[in-house]
Amino acid sequence: MTEQTRRAAHAVLIASGGMDSAVAAYVLRDRGTAVTMLSFDYGQRHRVELAYAAKIAELLDVPHEIVDLAGVGGLLGGSALTDHTVPVPDGHYSDETMRSTVVPNRNMIMLSVAAGVAVSRNADCVAYGAHAGDHAVYPDCRPEFYRQVDLAIRAGNDGFLAAGFRLEAPFLEVTKADIVRRGQALGVPFSLTWSCYKGGIVHCGTCGTCVERREAFALAGLDDPTEYAAAAGPEAVA
Amino acid sequence: MTEQTRRAAHAVLIASGGMDSAVAAYVLRDRGTAVTMLSFDYGQRHRVELAYAAKIAELLDVPHEIVDLAGVGGLLGGSALTDHTVPVPDGHYSDETMRSTVVPNRNMIMLSVAAGVAVSRNADCVAYGAHAGDHAVYPDCRPEFYRQVDLAIRAGNDGFLAAGFRLEAPFLEVTKADIVRRGQALGVPFSLTWSCYKGGIVHCGTCGTCVERREAFALAGLDDPTEYAAAAGPEAVA
Repeated sequence: MTEQTRRAAHAVLIASGGMDSAVAAYVLRDRGTAVTMLSFDYGQRHRVELAYAAKIAELLDVPHEIVDLAGVGGLLGGSALTDHTVPVPDGHYSDETMRSTVVPNRNMIMLSVAAGVAVSRNADCVAYGAHAGDHAVYPDCRPEFYRQVDLAIRAGNDGFLAAGFRLEAPFLEVTKADIVRRGQALGVPFSLTWSCYKGGIVHCGTCGTCVERREAFALAGLDDPTEYAAAAGPEAVA
Repeated sequence: MTEQTRRAAHAVLIASGGMDSAVAAYVLRDRGTAVTMLSFDYGQRHRVELAYAAKIAELLDVPHEIVDLAGVGGLLGGSALTDHTVPVPDGHYSDETMRSTVVPNRNMIMLSVAAGVAVSRNADCVAYGAHAGDHAVYPDCRPEFYRQVDLAIRAGNDGFLAAGFRLEAPFLEVTKADIVRRGQALGVPFSLTWSCYKGGIVHCGTCGTCVERREAFALAGLDDPTEYAAAAGPEAVA
């Protein structure tokens, strides 16, 4: 697991309401790092995930800010996640159809805002939950992007960053099954995390992130507490 | 002047309403590049500059989008430009007091959004008006930042950028006096650009950007059409 040994004093964590950022919050707290959670409303199809992020923040008793980027989301058309005329694809996460779930430059936008907040609050860390399973579909979850955006943040805030500032992506090289195991060990309440790209009352069970979520619990050999609308298909464990 | 010879087909230009981005818009049009102007409302003290950007867009007959980032601005406290409790300093632009006009990570946030819009609209260029005179105070106007943010955009949008995509900062290595000369040659209506950091009816004439604006016209040997509230002080031409 990619983890730096010297802990950060205060991390601004991008918190989507999903499993990865929830486990990241618990990992940071476990290290003794103060956490400020930052969620983004970019006009995504449903905002249930923002409520889940708020629940995790409440449980951890840490500050939680929701950043209104709805005006930005409206300009980033063509993604199934922001444009209601584009259907959310079903299937495995690595399928080519998942390209339609890319929101252009989303992580760079969120990381840039988080870096500004970190400077403003003298936090020495920005963290986000990108993991190895995201690499195929999402260029802004790959290690190369992580390295470049770290350098851009350092150059753009030279002289203003807190001492020892670092960008952290603790799961950059691990799988979602590893994240599930780690979260289980830290007592993360997975039932208070949301993955589904669709807007139902329970997880649909068939969209890319639902398939990935089921697969992660299965591969980790752990019970999945999630209620799904559809039974697992043959693609759930590929 | 740093200008690439192969012209871009379509540039998303960050347009503040100031002189630099107005001249950049005219430079791009002069090359035959289609321009989409993107302005940002990040809760700055006054929004008169957004109206000036709109006038330039109207004159050039190009699309103009105003991105609502007011919720972000509220999180980036401590700058004289976003926090009304911090006074706008008077004096020369390179003075240490101008640090209070830094909005943390502002250019990276705006460039990240502009890159997302470029991907969404298949534009092959993002452009902004940073110039050499900004380097001392603003790290996010320096060549090192330009290089790193260009690489971050490329990595984060790998496979999604229009062919030949480039980040352009046509004035990165030139002075504001050069920008004034270039704008004069291209017929830029400087009276429809706004620099002042304060919120008056006319330019104050004493804040950092007013001093810089006066100096640029004086050094360029051109008449300054700007109406200032205060006569030029001894610092106007340093």
